[in-house]
Amino acid sequence: MPALGLTPIGHLETPWASPAECPRNGRKPDPRPLCRAIVAPEYRAGLDQLDSFSHLILLYWMHLSGPAPLVITPRFAAGPRGIFATRAPVRPNPIALSVVEFIGFAEPGVLLVRNLDCVSGTPLLDIKPYLPSVDAEPEASMGWLVLR
Amino acid sequence: MPALGLTPIGHLETPWASPAECPRNGRKPDPRPLCRAIVAPEYRAGLDQLDSFSHLILLYWMHLSGPAPLVITPRFAAGPRGIFATRAPVRPNPIALSVVEFIGFAEPGVLLVRNLDCVSGTPLLDIKPYLPSVDAEPEASMGWLVLR
Repeated sequence: MPALGLTPIGHLETPWASPAECPRNGRKPDPRPLCRAIVAPEYRAGLDQLDSFSHLILLYWMHLSGPAPLVITPRFAAGPRGIFATRAPVRPNPIALSVVEFIGFAEPGVLLVRNLDCVSGTPLLDIKPYLPSVDAEPEASMGWLVLR
Repeated sequence: MPALGLTPIGHLETPWASPAECPRNGRKPDPRPLCRAIVAPEYRAGLDQLDSFSHLILLYWMHLSGPAPLVITPRFAAGPRGIFATRAPVRPNPIALSVVEFIGFAEPGVLLVRNLDCVSGTPLLDIKPYLPSVDAEPEASMGWLVLR
């Protein structure tokens, strides 16, 4: 299958300078820090009417994630897990997804958001409106993570 | 910013042969068709313990989506919208995301899922467990889509 190309549309600014500093879950810090998604000027026209949404999905590129084994043993797991049964950053295609609370624009092209857990400087790939009608499954199983 | 490379890990099989046939929302057909996510043999070790989850997030590449204007007027919208305020397939990085119900494996490497709305043959990029603790925001706003 052919290789596919991505171009970052901007980057993320968070309080964390290295992967070791990042929280495992961006909703756990109390208070959850305010982070910034900076959209490059040439893409800012695409943000029109984004401010009608309370939550967004950000897709970003885990540029520091390194090689991608297909099986890993997460620190908090009882044993090895297939990589697709985890949200670990080391993946064949290291695209991460975060559902963020959207606070508003600090200035044109600069989004204020909460719930991120990635390193500052992470390349941003896409912004989508979060739609509870298709994205919210509150009764979904936590799978093997239920006991962590 | 540098270009980033993706490699498909498999492909999706759906009832729809062209974009014009695809439903606008994969949850609307009644009954929702059973679709298949085919994972290439070299990635199948990454599926271990996936079957403990009821719902998954699939990321896939909208290979037929064409050029990406930054502003579009969706058929069902009252006027133009920034592309990042829509889930349209024409995006600077045409990565789609679907939250799917995971029925189980038809055979090794072949996942049975519901809720897809894409064309058959779509390249699959990633499989992640859906975690309601971080992915479910049932009270989120539908933004400008609330009145559609």
